[in-house]
Amino acid sequence: MMRSLARYLPILAWGRHYDRAALTNDLVAAVIVTIMLIPQSLAYALLAGLPPEAGIYASIAPILLYAVFGTSRALAVGPVAVVSLLTATAVGQVAEQGTAGYAAAALTLALLSGGFLVAMGVFRLGFLANFLSHPVIAGFITASGILIATSQVKHILGVEAGGHTLIEMVGALLSHLGQTNPITLAIGVAATGFLFWVRKGLKPLLRRIGAGPLLADIVTKAGPVAAVVVTTLAVWGFGLDQRGVSIVGEVPQALPPLTLPALAPDLIRQLAIPAILISIIGFVESISVAQTLAAKKRQRIDPNQELIGLGAANLGAAFTGGYPVTGGFARSVVNFDAGAETPAAGAFTAIGLAIAALALTPLVYYLPTATLAATIVVAVLSLVDFSILRKTWTYSRADFAAVAATILLTLTLGVETGVASGVILSIALHLYKTSRPHVAEVGLVPGTNHFRNIKRHEVQTVPHLLTLRVDESLYFVNARFLEDLIQDRVADNDALRHVVLMCSAVNEIDFSALESLEAINHRLTDLGIGLHLSEVKGPVMDRLKTTHFLDQLNGRVFLSQYDAWTALAKPADPARARQ
Amino acid sequence: MMRSLARYLPILAWGRHYDRAALTNDLVAAVIVTIMLIPQSLAYALLAGLPPEAGIYASIAPILLYAVFGTSRALAVGPVAVVSLLTATAVGQVAEQGTAGYAAAALTLALLSGGFLVAMGVFRLGFLANFLSHPVIAGFITASGILIATSQVKHILGVEAGGHTLIEMVGALLSHLGQTNPITLAIGVAATGFLFWVRKGLKPLLRRIGAGPLLADIVTKAGPVAAVVVTTLAVWGFGLDQRGVSIVGEVPQALPPLTLPALAPDLIRQLAIPAILISIIGFVESISVAQTLAAKKRQRIDPNQELIGLGAANLGAAFTGGYPVTGGFARSVVNFDAGAETPAAGAFTAIGLAIAALALTPLVYYLPTATLAATIVVAVLSLVDFSILRKTWTYSRADFAAVAATILLTLTLGVETGVASGVILSIALHLYKTSRPHVAEVGLVPGTNHFRNIKRHEVQTVPHLLTLRVDESLYFVNARFLEDLIQDRVADNDALRHVVLMCSAVNEIDFSALESLEAINHRLTDLGIGLHLSEVKGPVMDRLKTTHFLDQLNGRVFLSQYDAWTALAKPADPARARQ
Repeated sequence: MMRSLARYLPILAWGRHYDRAALTNDLVAAVIVTIMLIPQSLAYALLAGLPPEAGIYASIAPILLYAVFGTSRALAVGPVAVVSLLTATAVGQVAEQGTAGYAAAALTLALLSGGFLVAMGVFRLGFLANFLSHPVIAGFITASGILIATSQVKHILGVEAGGHTLIEMVGALLSHLGQTNPITLAIGVAATGFLFWVRKGLKPLLRRIGAGPLLADIVTKAGPVAAVVVTTLAVWGFGLDQRGVSIVGEVPQALPPLTLPALAPDLIRQLAIPAILISIIGFVESISVAQTLAAKKRQRIDPNQELIGLGAANLGAAFTGGYPVTGGFARSVVNFDAGAETPAAGAFTAIGLAIAALALTPLVYYLPTATLAATIVVAVLSLVDFSILRKTWTYSRADFAAVAATILLTLTLGVETGVASGVILSIALHLYKTSRPHVAEVGLVPGTNHFRNIKRHEVQTVPHLLTLRVDESLYFVNARFLEDLIQDRVADNDALRHVVLMCSAVNEIDFSALESLEAINHRLTDLGIGLHLSEVKGPVMDRLKTTHFLDQLNGRVFLSQYDAWTALAKPADPARARQ
Repeated sequence: MMRSLARYLPILAWGRHYDRAALTNDLVAAVIVTIMLIPQSLAYALLAGLPPEAGIYASIAPILLYAVFGTSRALAVGPVAVVSLLTATAVGQVAEQGTAGYAAAALTLALLSGGFLVAMGVFRLGFLANFLSHPVIAGFITASGILIATSQVKHILGVEAGGHTLIEMVGALLSHLGQTNPITLAIGVAATGFLFWVRKGLKPLLRRIGAGPLLADIVTKAGPVAAVVVTTLAVWGFGLDQRGVSIVGEVPQALPPLTLPALAPDLIRQLAIPAILISIIGFVESISVAQTLAAKKRQRIDPNQELIGLGAANLGAAFTGGYPVTGGFARSVVNFDAGAETPAAGAFTAIGLAIAALALTPLVYYLPTATLAATIVVAVLSLVDFSILRKTWTYSRADFAAVAATILLTLTLGVETGVASGVILSIALHLYKTSRPHVAEVGLVPGTNHFRNIKRHEVQTVPHLLTLRVDESLYFVNARFLEDLIQDRVADNDALRHVVLMCSAVNEIDFSALESLEAINHRLTDLGIGLHLSEVKGPVMDRLKTTHFLDQLNGRVFLSQYDAWTALAKPADPARARQ
């Protein structure tokens, strides 16, 4: 009872063994992560087109709920860059930024996403995420990074500009270039430069002057906080908000409110597909991080329970003024490196953020949005990695085609079209490859009982026996290919008496392929040629036995290819063969 | 030069060896097929919603063009039942039956279909037809047979009734039942009963009274002609057309006219998808017939050249007053059985039909449409075969699901939705199956060097060595499955020192799977566990060698699983293993 309950409530498993040592480690990790999350949460809310507090609220209830339902010990859940971009795209199609309808639609999106994730978990549909291939994800993340960085340029210039695709955004930026606010630009460029330096130059510097690796890491992660403090003081001190510098402004000094997502049927219909997309992309990003961190400590991640954990987190976001969330890479790694041992670290982070929401929000009144934009730009440019193009080009043109299409279409037609095209193209290319399987004619390696491709090895063959090894499962997409192939091989070959299909790599024979085999058997019978099978796998043989095929087969089924050779390779009896 | 030209013009190959014997055989076959085709062509035109002469015209130019470009010696091209139904459905959506626009749209459909087939042939895309699995085709043909038979009931009752799905048609028939014309009904029922008897009872009777098999066959095939003659005479003799019996009426006494298909962009856009569907379904039907007949004489069919042949036939239909055509099963078998040796038989059939169009059309003036409907009903009910449901249920639930969905959706939502759903469902189920591949832990069969599933055989294993045989190609859809699986197997197993992946059934490793293998290798390295591969296939190994994976692999690649066992199964050195 307790065991099965613990499966759905992982907190019961780790909670019982929680001790003072774990508490200390979790508390330290929580402080570090909280400091890092304050500016990040404000920035991602800006990216999602929401008021800054939405980012903080989206980090409180979701973290607590994930701590109860999630299986990863170190995953930190909250707003992340790509999901924030997807939220802005989806909600921007149904409401105007800055309106109450926009915030309500973001809650609806979180609700739908949470419901979909929980449903996927309950029905154990986690495998659906696998349809996003690694190259498609890599291409999508790279293209998203470019889109996100471009979307922030307007904040750094201090202009109003819209657009969801790269072309739209660049066009809008160029047409507004004349309205650039020079002070905003100075703040934005300085902050960006500073943050880049923190990321690339500060850590080695600290290590050189003798700081320990953990200290160097913490100081580096606090870089955005320094940028926030300095630029906020500058705006306040010089009254720069009076000179056109856009600031964060009033942020409610309160705990997350209880909110009700909008539930108009029209809205739900419009947001359903984006919600599914956000769920799957968020899940894929989250599970890779969770698995990488779990493997380091020999812990297990249950993908279907993860869906429930992330779903609960999103439902929590929907009812507490947040927006869609998932497990983030950067924050989880920081959490793990800082020594978090259990999800309690997440709970303590949530408490830290709640205190920030209550006490610190007045302090960000003068924070310039250009600084937040700079933290986003620096964070997402690390996502941009075109090396996937080179790697896939060398390894497989099909994978390259999928990644190139994903990048190109995400940039030009938008995130939803881009990722959908990538998925469809990968499936189509996979089906195309299996539609023309590798088929090798094999012969006996002299002095052994192994059989190898006659084109790659010196092997023995006899003219009246043709042995084909089919390197693919036989199913409807390639069933006719096999028919054509055998017909071609048989048509001009009068010496042929036996065809053996070596099935060591045939993992499935579906009904279409069974009918093709029946047709092949029928045609070969008409021509006085025997059809034999060898090395048929257990599960495939079990299934063939439920049919009449084995009774109708004019030849035999051999356990090993060598048995087939022994029985069939001796010169055929000409009198018998002609009958 | 001549050889490569002959590839695109198969007539050059057989035409050079044409002799008197072949001529005689072809002429006999042509006479038999012509007699059979006259009523059939009129009937299928009725089914397609076109004037009767369209059926005859669609059998003349297309046959001649197929004789030049096609590769089958016996295939008879012309209107067939399923394609006529698809034509009626597609054209019915853009024009009203009986209008000039309807006939022009049917020409456009033939033009688009012909263009698409030729393009598929030129770009060698014949494999696309393979996405229609055998069960989906069988389900579609059965459902189409039911739809076609139901669509003819109105002609037998002598009422006006429309509808494209089974429910619509039955509803329309029921609401018009009161208007049934009793004389039409009598003719229709009598003709249907007679044709059923000819099909089931006449042939055995003729054989019993001593007729040879060929004669019995010819007489049986002439059954529809007898029904046509008798009912036409009855209508003429008793003036039944004055009493509400619908007749064929005026048919132009002329050779096929030169026609220009309508080319409005709107029309082309509306007909493009139906044209693709008709092309693929027609091609699949045609190629199965062609291949079955060619195999009996050890001849070859080139699927891509067949596309060009069928495409040319459809283009011919588009410019000579026809509508979409393909190779028909019944007529091709009759042609083959009657002794046709070359496509010249088809050309002679075309001449026969041209003579019929010139000389015989006045004779069908009084032919009741109920008789044509009866010939269609009897012909298509032989297509209805629900045994595919039982067969697939026994063999594979996935195939059963695809065929059941195809039948159900074709009947209830129409032909296009039905066949599209069947295709999508078969692909989805295939991907689902490969997403959770069969993975067997294997051990050594004592006294041999074979390895078998530990669950099916008595085999040797050692605790520090885990050997997994993956019975599927590794690609994005199942890459994470393997990661999860190995993580699960490793998490609780402290004795483990080596994991071997036996790859004899792995036909491909795509980029996603490569990255998964890298991740697995990385994680196992962290845990001090070796990752090894065995029996990697040549093409897979070639590709792995282009990457750094083999350098990073912490274990080895063994040519055979027995080599791996020999190297790794001896008790591990504990000192070394813990490092």
